[in-house]
Amino acid sequence: MKDSVLNHALDQQPRLIETLKTLVACPSVGADPAMAEGMEDARNLLETRLAEMGFQNRQRLTPPDGSGQPALYGERLEAPGKPTILIYAHYDVQPADPLEKWETPPFEAVERDGRLYGRGISDDKAPMLIALESLAAFIAVDGKLPVNVKLLIEGEEETGSPSLPAILETHRDLLQADAVLSADGARWRPDLVALNVGSRGNTGFEVRVQTAAQDLHSGRYGGIVANPLHVLSSLIASLHDADGHIAAEGFYDGVVAPTEAERAEIDAIPFDEGATFSAIGAKPSGEAGYSSLERLWMRPTVDVNGMWGGYIGAGSKTVIPNEAFAKLTMRLVPGQDPQSAKEAVINHLRANLPATATLEISGERGQGGAYAVPAGHPLLAAAVAALEHTSGETPLKVRIGASLPLTEIVSRLLGLDTVMFSFALSDENFHAPNEFFRLSSIPDGLASWVQILREIAKTSPAQYSAYRRA
Amino acid sequence: MKDSVLNHALDQQPRLIETLKTLVACPSVGADPAMAEGMEDARNLLETRLAEMGFQNRQRLTPPDGSGQPALYGERLEAPGKPTILIYAHYDVQPADPLEKWETPPFEAVERDGRLYGRGISDDKAPMLIALESLAAFIAVDGKLPVNVKLLIEGEEETGSPSLPAILETHRDLLQADAVLSADGARWRPDLVALNVGSRGNTGFEVRVQTAAQDLHSGRYGGIVANPLHVLSSLIASLHDADGHIAAEGFYDGVVAPTEAERAEIDAIPFDEGATFSAIGAKPSGEAGYSSLERLWMRPTVDVNGMWGGYIGAGSKTVIPNEAFAKLTMRLVPGQDPQSAKEAVINHLRANLPATATLEISGERGQGGAYAVPAGHPLLAAAVAALEHTSGETPLKVRIGASLPLTEIVSRLLGLDTVMFSFALSDENFHAPNEFFRLSSIPDGLASWVQILREIAKTSPAQYSAYRRA
Repeated sequence: MKDSVLNHALDQQPRLIETLKTLVACPSVGADPAMAEGMEDARNLLETRLAEMGFQNRQRLTPPDGSGQPALYGERLEAPGKPTILIYAHYDVQPADPLEKWETPPFEAVERDGRLYGRGISDDKAPMLIALESLAAFIAVDGKLPVNVKLLIEGEEETGSPSLPAILETHRDLLQADAVLSADGARWRPDLVALNVGSRGNTGFEVRVQTAAQDLHSGRYGGIVANPLHVLSSLIASLHDADGHIAAEGFYDGVVAPTEAERAEIDAIPFDEGATFSAIGAKPSGEAGYSSLERLWMRPTVDVNGMWGGYIGAGSKTVIPNEAFAKLTMRLVPGQDPQSAKEAVINHLRANLPATATLEISGERGQGGAYAVPAGHPLLAAAVAALEHTSGETPLKVRIGASLPLTEIVSRLLGLDTVMFSFALSDENFHAPNEFFRLSSIPDGLASWVQILREIAKTSPAQYSAYRRA
Repeated sequence: MKDSVLNHALDQQPRLIETLKTLVACPSVGADPAMAEGMEDARNLLETRLAEMGFQNRQRLTPPDGSGQPALYGERLEAPGKPTILIYAHYDVQPADPLEKWETPPFEAVERDGRLYGRGISDDKAPMLIALESLAAFIAVDGKLPVNVKLLIEGEEETGSPSLPAILETHRDLLQADAVLSADGARWRPDLVALNVGSRGNTGFEVRVQTAAQDLHSGRYGGIVANPLHVLSSLIASLHDADGHIAAEGFYDGVVAPTEAERAEIDAIPFDEGATFSAIGAKPSGEAGYSSLERLWMRPTVDVNGMWGGYIGAGSKTVIPNEAFAKLTMRLVPGQDPQSAKEAVINHLRANLPATATLEISGERGQGGAYAVPAGHPLLAAAVAALEHTSGETPLKVRIGASLPLTEIVSRLLGLDTVMFSFALSDENFHAPNEFFRLSSIPDGLASWVQILREIAKTSPAQYSAYRRA
């Protein structure tokens, strides 16, 4: 069967790679003010390409005060009766430090062994260009897109998307769509055809326990005053029971237990537990009654990320410190309200605090809920169908234990669901030296994007309305 | 009643203060190599004074290799049939840092409001000179001392007496005596006539808990690996039960419970618990069934002096660290063997370690047992009688919660008991800026030292032999 659109897309791969090399050569490190020119170069390159592709209403989106790195916007709304899809990507990249660990210069895309190396190439310049060039193929061959497309290309993803909520709120009408398809994210493993259908939320705080006005000498006060490190240790120890359940009352409020079907689905996923744990020199641990993947994807956590107090230099000092500190974060699952979950843990600490100590909570963190694509969502069905078409396999539905702020922000502010459809792979060193992208992912990605656009074209806006929350 | 010796001693106070000022002007900070000259000046000054006083066999004592700061030795053995007392003091002082917190220069003795300020003046240059000048008064008036005296003036007390054990072992014959009388130490409180009859021992170690080969991201591993800060917190929490007893099996081995008489004695000591705790902004805490003074003096402790792991900088980092650390020390009471007590705690940690973590013990510390002067010891009786004579009150028998390595080292290596007979007061800022010594303590101290030498002269060497252990 001749597929003119896909053939065109595949034929254009040399051009895609050329564009990708030019884009990698723009050092678009948003965190580094010295690289403002690289950010602007990346924006100009993308805006030029969007203009070439006939995208209209092109503009830079910012919060009302114009602050932050602008997001790029463009639209082609030329498929009456078809769904409108907001395609998300980002043009900013992580800093390249530590530079000395790069085998080739980070802002020069270099090919080795079927891979292209460069900062931001996998996260997410190549996946973004795959999405854009699949659109370009429809435009070149058919003269138009099969669905209505709005593009939102963010410039602050790697710095925590501080302006994104304000951009979504300010440009709510402009950004209205039926669903969001993200060219950012990552496929789980090279050996699996999989779709990510959920991520955990997160929240956190910092705690300070104080037992005296000053540090005390253990000879003069040892045994007659409370030691804040003992108090804090007891509080931390009390957060989990012997089975690894979190003991804070109310913490699990709203958590929906995984269904038997979901558990069976997870259980069916090939997962080499031995290899996973031996790679990190650790042993499986966690909540009783759940497998490792269930723990990671379906169960919330409380973790101390840092803890300190007293004398931590060389040698010994017989001090009873007067204060002790810990930084805690939580990973949350669907159904949990981040604020309530955080307060449950704080209330537990307060309830277990002995009368000899005081407790101070600080360190407000950004927080967000977990996210899961509804099982029946038409965009998810389109993604499944696209991957079945290109791979011949039914993709496994996987989740991630980390948080994807985009999905939660878009859900909360636009009421839309998001499907992650990146062709990065999770081992491609993003956020680390020697980031790379597999050249073989380019034809895979183009074929899948061409197909998902066709699958979406088979759906109607009405199918999405049941899922839209705003 | 005319007391020529005491009168002579009191008449010589201006000279004592002059000598004290000269001695304070020698910056004898043993820890600071740049102050070697100050150490030598202090030694020379004391040696000159000992020569003037007719002390014989004067020499500098070191370990066989000549390392470390020498201790000064001298003897007057001219009281046949009388006990031989080893009088201990030290000529080194703490560093003066932080210099900016001193109101007057630390190495210049300045008088203000009935106090002399200067580094080392209370710890223990003034108490040492009080002891020496009381001896000088006997020599000046009677031509001889009432008991046999050996002087040992150490130069490494403030740096932990690293050479003292080797000095005692090397010069064991030279230093043989019936008991040790220390001009170092401190009276507990200005408002109480008291003798210190016991101190706690100490030991310690450092612990490292490891759960993985590297730090892990809480999104990728949260919930499936053990968090070493949780493991360490649980271990620390497990060290004490709900009543504040130490839960490590065997830790209390050998501990002799305080007798009813001892408890009554302690209970009779005026102790303003409210004032003590409000001064440090803390609340009473500790082992159930004991008063604060019993906890401090008669009960052993385990304290975490420092604990750390993970991210402890500003903000948040969603890391699961792979290791966590704690520094622990113990305070020990009579009957406890330091090594066994330490091993009991280490064994407890190992026994409670989950299979997901490994434990490493390091940080060998100097350690020593608790010390208590035997209740019937003749030197203790002499001290009681001397204080009754000078104050008209029976001194209270108090202990300290801290450790006095001298007493334990002398007991272990020379088999001798030590009575602390310093006229420093514990509020005189030793080891801190603006160290001072009350001028009023000089006549008190001289009278008490003159009297204790007379009281010792009433005893016979045979009375001591039952207590000598080597």
